[in-house]
Amino acid sequence: MAPTITGLTATDLRFPTSISRGGSDAMNTDPDYSAAYVVLTTSTGVEGHGFTFTIGRGNELCVAAIEAMRALVVGLSLETIVADMAGFWRSLAGDSQLRWVGPEKGVVHLALAAIVNAVWDLWAVVEGKAVWKLVADLTPQQFVGLIDFRHIADEMTPSQALALLERQAEGKAERETRLLRDGYPAYTTSAGWLGYDDGRIRDLCHAAVAEGWSALKIKVGRNRDDDIRRCAVVRAAIGPDRLMMIDANQVWEVDEAIDWVRALARFDPYWIEEPVSPDDILGHARIAAAVHPVRVASGEHAHNRVMFKQFLQARALDVVQLDNCRLGGLNEVLAVLLLAAKFEVPVCPHAGGVGLCEYAQHISAIDYLCVSGSMTGRMTEHAGQLHEHFVDPIRIDCGRYRLSGVPGFSARMHADTISRFRFSPTQTAHAIGEAAAVLSIAV
Amino acid sequence: MAPTITGLTATDLRFPTSISRGGSDAMNTDPDYSAAYVVLTTSTGVEGHGFTFTIGRGNELCVAAIEAMRALVVGLSLETIVADMAGFWRSLAGDSQLRWVGPEKGVVHLALAAIVNAVWDLWAVVEGKAVWKLVADLTPQQFVGLIDFRHIADEMTPSQALALLERQAEGKAERETRLLRDGYPAYTTSAGWLGYDDGRIRDLCHAAVAEGWSALKIKVGRNRDDDIRRCAVVRAAIGPDRLMMIDANQVWEVDEAIDWVRALARFDPYWIEEPVSPDDILGHARIAAAVHPVRVASGEHAHNRVMFKQFLQARALDVVQLDNCRLGGLNEVLAVLLLAAKFEVPVCPHAGGVGLCEYAQHISAIDYLCVSGSMTGRMTEHAGQLHEHFVDPIRIDCGRYRLSGVPGFSARMHADTISRFRFSPTQTAHAIGEAAAVLSIAV
Repeated sequence: MAPTITGLTATDLRFPTSISRGGSDAMNTDPDYSAAYVVLTTSTGVEGHGFTFTIGRGNELCVAAIEAMRALVVGLSLETIVADMAGFWRSLAGDSQLRWVGPEKGVVHLALAAIVNAVWDLWAVVEGKAVWKLVADLTPQQFVGLIDFRHIADEMTPSQALALLERQAEGKAERETRLLRDGYPAYTTSAGWLGYDDGRIRDLCHAAVAEGWSALKIKVGRNRDDDIRRCAVVRAAIGPDRLMMIDANQVWEVDEAIDWVRALARFDPYWIEEPVSPDDILGHARIAAAVHPVRVASGEHAHNRVMFKQFLQARALDVVQLDNCRLGGLNEVLAVLLLAAKFEVPVCPHAGGVGLCEYAQHISAIDYLCVSGSMTGRMTEHAGQLHEHFVDPIRIDCGRYRLSGVPGFSARMHADTISRFRFSPTQTAHAIGEAAAVLSIAV
Repeated sequence: MAPTITGLTATDLRFPTSISRGGSDAMNTDPDYSAAYVVLTTSTGVEGHGFTFTIGRGNELCVAAIEAMRALVVGLSLETIVADMAGFWRSLAGDSQLRWVGPEKGVVHLALAAIVNAVWDLWAVVEGKAVWKLVADLTPQQFVGLIDFRHIADEMTPSQALALLERQAEGKAERETRLLRDGYPAYTTSAGWLGYDDGRIRDLCHAAVAEGWSALKIKVGRNRDDDIRRCAVVRAAIGPDRLMMIDANQVWEVDEAIDWVRALARFDPYWIEEPVSPDDILGHARIAAAVHPVRVASGEHAHNRVMFKQFLQARALDVVQLDNCRLGGLNEVLAVLLLAAKFEVPVCPHAGGVGLCEYAQHISAIDYLCVSGSMTGRMTEHAGQLHEHFVDPIRIDCGRYRLSGVPGFSARMHADTISRFRFSPTQTAHAIGEAAAVLSIAV
């Protein structure tokens, strides 16, 4: 019997990560990794779990936005949703009143992701497959039916998408075998937070190399001399052949970014990430042209497929770092995978935070199996924190993701975690650090 | 004695406009014009009032986001804020956790506008001046101090802004005399909502002409044959010399927009507004090149100065329709006025809804007096509804705004309005029309 969605709960979960300064960068100085966590209950007892990721204050706004969409979801059968998933997606993204406070960006789009991803989890659990496998087993025609092509038809129509997917259908089985055997390449962000001193960074780099990592990312952008020193520490620790990426988290002006990256170029950074405002497509394009062969990477704040379309049209990105929460869930992620494949730009999904790695492994697998058909130049981001809270946590082996075979979207947290890290509205903390203090029970 | 902000209230106000179909267009079919309304109370008893505008569901999210910023505002003295208003603005826009759920877009940015504009109202009331006059009386150096130039320095630095403002300081007194004598040009959007039939549109056009309007805007984009018929009705009613603007409210794809506008070109539309996704800078640029001499106008959904910077860099807009709520309040509006002046693109502020006309008159006056120094090609939008709720409503005479001299930002609603249209969280309506039904008491 196909389940009907009979209930929706949205829970404000916050982890006090600001205390350890893990996750600190030049823009985000004190994140408390948080999730607006959705559980869909159904007529058959099966559940769908999903979440959107934030860094603390504002998580309550995503919870409220999820509540605002409740009536658009509860009462629908899974069969109805799956029969026209693009239509379902648009009915939420395009609600005639709610879209004013977006449209397709910010709080409402983050909330949309939580719901859409919970529906994916539900569907996959019902099918008894991991989400990556569920999508890989769809026909190209069914895959196209998942996507709202509105506002990207100048670069990608349903028929163009179909042709691309049909080309990649050949060899899919062989790629699946290889993926399960070898895993998917990854890089780690756990070594180089701005809050860490040089000694700690050196130790973490040595440990990462010992664990088999061949690509590491560090944060830059607060002080140029510090960055030169830190890049030297990392390059010395990892040797000349491993990749070092640098991430400025939006703090520069366009010309400042060009100068600063040139000053760090002698340490051979593989990419510079988020050099300027995440909305500044033309700024990224100028930087990309100026700092080549250093690549420009961005996307964790690129809020919809229309932004990615333009980043690609403008040749502003060498690496697409889409995010399954910033975009409106997996359906829109698939649209961006198609656009990136058309422009032959590799997708390296944004991850870290809480649960983003769990999502990202599915996206990279889908890209490899169905869309780009390639691992070249592609890596899924990895950070080491908070995986213990998940029922089906990621597995990393020698710097590669080992894919989950558990049915669902790997989004499900332990019941104990949900009750321990639930944030009460009456606790809502405004002063910096207050949220962390409230939640410090678990550090 | 300089006041200190001691309290902040945020109220969810909704007007049941969906019942009359006023405000209906191809994207926004059933708006209930709403305001997230802020009152700042102070140690001296003087108050600052401001709001952000939405169209119904989602207004509660803006109220919640205003609450999330409370601790960043309450406790500050007006003197402290005014001494570094750019710094104050950035402290709210850049809160290290809240910015994740933007950044500088969507719900949190709309909320920022309500607070920032309430601070402007407070400052203006304390100075005993209308906001436009308060700004016009600042020195160029003081004006520059209002603006956060982050992420636009590649096109506008503080020193470039200062030079521009100093050039325009000459002749300011003379322009003020002219502005007070002649008013500021406007156009009306009240005639051509999609929900109106041809007969009603014809009657409204004739009435508008009789009232002295020389520029009218109608909605298009739902059905091409309907649009051809409606454009013919309007053009016949207003004659060949008055301006007719058309507004598609984002419903087209890029190529579709080009074809559709060409099909309407024989009716000599002055501009096409929001042809595609409001995020699609490069799409607007292609359309602008293709439909010339029809102008391309957009901006009511352009969410920050970085987006406008790029629209201007890409020559994607012939008319800048910035909005005092979509942008983060007047301070960011001033940044966009400067950018538009640099690129010599006229600003025609978005208005209508509830209270947007009241704000927009100040912006056009500031643009004329301080920034562009010109009325050529410039008009402030006007729509006729809901002005009765304001203490200092706009005054229109022969199709021109007659400027307010009342101290403040003209944002203050009657106490009776605030109590009658207050929307209770327990009423929060999700189904289309439900909000209108709940609020129908006042229709």
